[in-house]
Amino acid sequence: MKEFEKNIRKVVPYVPGEQPKIRNIIKLNTNENPYPPSNLVKKAIENFDSDTLKYYPDPTMEKIVAKLADYHKVSKDMVFVGVGSDDVLAMAFMTFFNSQKPLLFPDITYSFYDVWAELFKIYYKRIPLDEEFKIKKEDYYIENGGIIFPNPNAPTGVFESLDTIRNILDNNKDVVVIIDEAYVDFAKESALSLIDEYDNLLVVRTFSKSRSLAGLRLGYAIGNPLLIKYLNDVKYSFNSYTLNALSMEMAAASIDDEEYFKETIKKVINTRENAKKTLSELGFEFADSQSNFIFAKHKSFSASIIFEKLKKNNIFVRYFNKERIDNYLRISIGTDEEMDKFFECLKKIINELD
Amino acid sequence: MKEFEKNIRKVVPYVPGEQPKIRNIIKLNTNENPYPPSNLVKKAIENFDSDTLKYYPDPTMEKIVAKLADYHKVSKDMVFVGVGSDDVLAMAFMTFFNSQKPLLFPDITYSFYDVWAELFKIYYKRIPLDEEFKIKKEDYYIENGGIIFPNPNAPTGVFESLDTIRNILDNNKDVVVIIDEAYVDFAKESALSLIDEYDNLLVVRTFSKSRSLAGLRLGYAIGNPLLIKYLNDVKYSFNSYTLNALSMEMAAASIDDEEYFKETIKKVINTRENAKKTLSELGFEFADSQSNFIFAKHKSFSASIIFEKLKKNNIFVRYFNKERIDNYLRISIGTDEEMDKFFECLKKIINELD
Repeated sequence: MKEFEKNIRKVVPYVPGEQPKIRNIIKLNTNENPYPPSNLVKKAIENFDSDTLKYYPDPTMEKIVAKLADYHKVSKDMVFVGVGSDDVLAMAFMTFFNSQKPLLFPDITYSFYDVWAELFKIYYKRIPLDEEFKIKKEDYYIENGGIIFPNPNAPTGVFESLDTIRNILDNNKDVVVIIDEAYVDFAKESALSLIDEYDNLLVVRTFSKSRSLAGLRLGYAIGNPLLIKYLNDVKYSFNSYTLNALSMEMAAASIDDEEYFKETIKKVINTRENAKKTLSELGFEFADSQSNFIFAKHKSFSASIIFEKLKKNNIFVRYFNKERIDNYLRISIGTDEEMDKFFECLKKIINELD
Repeated sequence: MKEFEKNIRKVVPYVPGEQPKIRNIIKLNTNENPYPPSNLVKKAIENFDSDTLKYYPDPTMEKIVAKLADYHKVSKDMVFVGVGSDDVLAMAFMTFFNSQKPLLFPDITYSFYDVWAELFKIYYKRIPLDEEFKIKKEDYYIENGGIIFPNPNAPTGVFESLDTIRNILDNNKDVVVIIDEAYVDFAKESALSLIDEYDNLLVVRTFSKSRSLAGLRLGYAIGNPLLIKYLNDVKYSFNSYTLNALSMEMAAASIDDEEYFKETIKKVINTRENAKKTLSELGFEFADSQSNFIFAKHKSFSASIIFEKLKKNNIFVRYFNKERIDNYLRISIGTDEEMDKFFECLKKIINELD
């Protein structure tokens, strides 16, 4: 090791799902939306004056902050915007979780949480989910330096009721509690309705899933103005201008097309419910998903084998070689056509294994 | 203070230059390029298929990494890309400066350095520049945990020779040395020529100044593959997908138009050299600038008064109310037409004060 390496922060990074460059694949591995973004996004690009790129973008991101505030019926000082919800969450970890007591999150959850904790040297504790991948709320009554979990959870798709969230908040008023709602538009209800009641609650959202804009990189957080102020202080101490000028226009255009947004979500949910039936018929078991993916294991056959066989047929799903979930596949919901092809291939694989 | 505020990281953020929303102003305050980006950037936007935004962008940013590697004649594993050079520098601070010994940088320099040091709790020491705002290289022979300075320096515009940089590198082989070359395209030569020789040297660049793409948010670092690997580990532990798909296309297009790039730089340099003459005639003093701005003080009149009077005339320059430089104005170079209007107004102000 060279001498200058001694002062280097050494971390094991998060590994995102594959983004294969070959064509003619069916991509059900990174929970993207199978439908394109709103036509208004296309128009926003067409109408954009590229000459204005010579200027720095508005550091306050006023246009998109105001749109989001209006959309969610909160004040502008309750909205924080970042480069995808990963950026928002990274900033939130850095801002809020600086306790000597452990940060708590489920043992089966978004696999970036422990990566951020390691990066920022945050002490953390994984709290096991029950056998049905549900949160046991009493486990979160212990002393802690903060709490975070996704709802619906990833990669399980399991949704926790607002009663559970309220109970956890009631028992944790002295720490910041983050509900990571990347997939909530595919579920029943959002914790945003609790924002006014709990000043230590931060709800994080993204344009990557329900808005078909994973390629745009836009995420946001909503919380009381005090939390948002601290978050902005850290953000402005990191990078003044994170969101580019054109991205703000595209994001604003997406919000303007509520009809298309709702229609797309409806289609994904319909396909998901049909997929649940077919998966059951094929011998898969899964907790009920309220997201745009299904986390399933087969009664008889190994997930890793099915994963590899699907991949050979140019169908990509996600497989995590991790404790408790190493026999599961996470299958993102595609279009009906994509799902038909997926199930056709899956049936063939199951028959061959049988 | 609420209980949950106790675990919050409290910082004083960097304050970027104003981005006034009113029109008909002359904006010489944030070192933007007065010329629009290349026409190829406009075409890249026109040719972009917005439907592809439903997918995550390529996390390896292969297209733009390969372009930059080719452009600078280095291998791809020597290039790191981020959301503006501020993002690159923030990641570099987090990655490389984790020593108990002080990070060294000039007392007059980019005012984000101490903000990042505070954010990441890095111990640092400001090393005074000499009376002519030049680096005294011997001051950097002391024990330290890393070194960073811009070249040309901001906000002074002063350029240090490669001999000075080489000397500092020769005396600091056990720490990472970062040369922040945001403005180097307006100067004589780059430290990139030293990259193969010093494996602890990182050179940071941006598309915001010479490429007229401040609104795009793209910066990059070049260094030996070991440094870039560590930097990527931290980046992938923070946010997998920082650069959006369209930004990559725009950036690649900018690199493809070398002729326009060179022509734009030539125009800015010509205007800068003319501006130096006029400033001298008006009684201003300044160290020789090799960037796209001039850092000047008037022999008789206070910078803050001139700053306010210019602002009242809708002309924005930058004023720093800081020790040693509180009588200076930083004037970004605009078009010839903008500079004519600026000088017309400045003459009037000086005459009134006289």
